[in-house]
Amino acid sequence: MNYCSQCGAAVQQKIPEGDNRPRYVCNQCETIHYQNPRIIAGCLPIYQDQVLLCKRAIEPGYGLWTLPAGFMENGETTREGAIRETREEACATVDLKELYTITSITPINQVQMFYLAELARPEFAAGEETLEAQLFYEHEIPWEQIAFRTVTNALKLYFEDRKQGVFPLRHIDFHGKKKPFSPTAA
Amino acid sequence: MNYCSQCGAAVQQKIPEGDNRPRYVCNQCETIHYQNPRIIAGCLPIYQDQVLLCKRAIEPGYGLWTLPAGFMENGETTREGAIRETREEACATVDLKELYTITSITPINQVQMFYLAELARPEFAAGEETLEAQLFYEHEIPWEQIAFRTVTNALKLYFEDRKQGVFPLRHIDFHGKKKPFSPTAA
Repeated sequence: MNYCSQCGAAVQQKIPEGDNRPRYVCNQCETIHYQNPRIIAGCLPIYQDQVLLCKRAIEPGYGLWTLPAGFMENGETTREGAIRETREEACATVDLKELYTITSITPINQVQMFYLAELARPEFAAGEETLEAQLFYEHEIPWEQIAFRTVTNALKLYFEDRKQGVFPLRHIDFHGKKKPFSPTAA
Repeated sequence: MNYCSQCGAAVQQKIPEGDNRPRYVCNQCETIHYQNPRIIAGCLPIYQDQVLLCKRAIEPGYGLWTLPAGFMENGETTREGAIRETREEACATVDLKELYTITSITPINQVQMFYLAELARPEFAAGEETLEAQLFYEHEIPWEQIAFRTVTNALKLYFEDRKQGVFPLRHIDFHGKKKPFSPTAA
C-alpha cells in the first residue's frame, strides 16, 4: 500500500494513537487503512459415497484438485458464500449441512471454512475457474494432486469421521512457515 | 474508495473480466481492489458462575456492556485474536475453550466468533477501550445495556445451554436491515 484510497495522498506505516501495531496511515487526511484476514468459504459436497472435487483452471494450483471454495464476499453469510462458490466452480446445487472445518492460516492471513454439503443428484459441471468436476470414492481420491493442504485435511478428516458417522467441528490453527499451498498431505 | 492504493490513480467500479460483480479497479495500473468481510473474534469469559463483561469506552456503544472482542488481525489465528482482545479490553488471561457462536452479519460485512473461555482467577481490569470490567451472575446481567445484539445472543444462549451443561456451536446468520448494533434483546 502506497497511497490513500480516500484522498490519493501518500501513506506511511506508523502506530496510530491508542493502537499498538503499525498501520498504513494517510499523511494528509489521516485515514487509517486496516488490513485484516479474509475468509475462504467452501463445501465438501457429498453424493452417496462419493465426494465432488474440482480440477483448478486458475493459479494457485492450476491442474490440481480442490473442494469448491473461494473468498467470502461482502453482503453474504459464510453459508451463502460456500453455496455460491459451489455453484460457480462446480455448477452444483448443494443442501448445506454443518460447518465441518475452520482453519486459521496465519502466513496468508486467511480463515478457511468448509461445510459438509449434500448433492441431491449427481448434477455438476466445470465452472469458469474449473477444468473438470468429478465425483470420487475414497479409494479414488488423487491425494498427490490436491491443491491445498486444508483440502487434504478436510478430506482425510471426513473419511475418518465417516466411519463413526459423527462429524464434530474441526478447528485447526496453521502457523507454520511451510507453504500451506502444497500438494503434500497434511 | 476513490484512489488506487498501489499507484495513486483514480479507481472506478466495474466488473473485471471473468468476474461477476463490480469491484474498484484502477484506471491506470488495473489493480483490482477486493473488499471482503472482516472477522470479530472474542470471548465469553467465565469465572465460576459469573461472566465477565466490559463497559465500552469507545463508540459504537460507548457506556454499554459487551464481551471482550475485536477485529482479528493479520498474522494471528481466530483463537489468538480472541485471547488478545480479552487481554487488551479486560486485562484478563483466559483458558480458551470451544468456539461457541459464529454469526454472519451481512449489513456490516462481519463474521463474529465468540469462544467460551475460563478465568482461572478473578483477575481483570479495564483496558484502554474499556471504562470498567465486572463479573456478573445471570440475574445481574444488564440486559438493557448490552452494546451489541450478538453479545445479547451469546449470553442468552450460554445461560440456556448451561442448564444442560452442553454448548453446541451456535451458527447464526443475520441478514436484517435492522441495525445489529442495538441495546435491545435479540
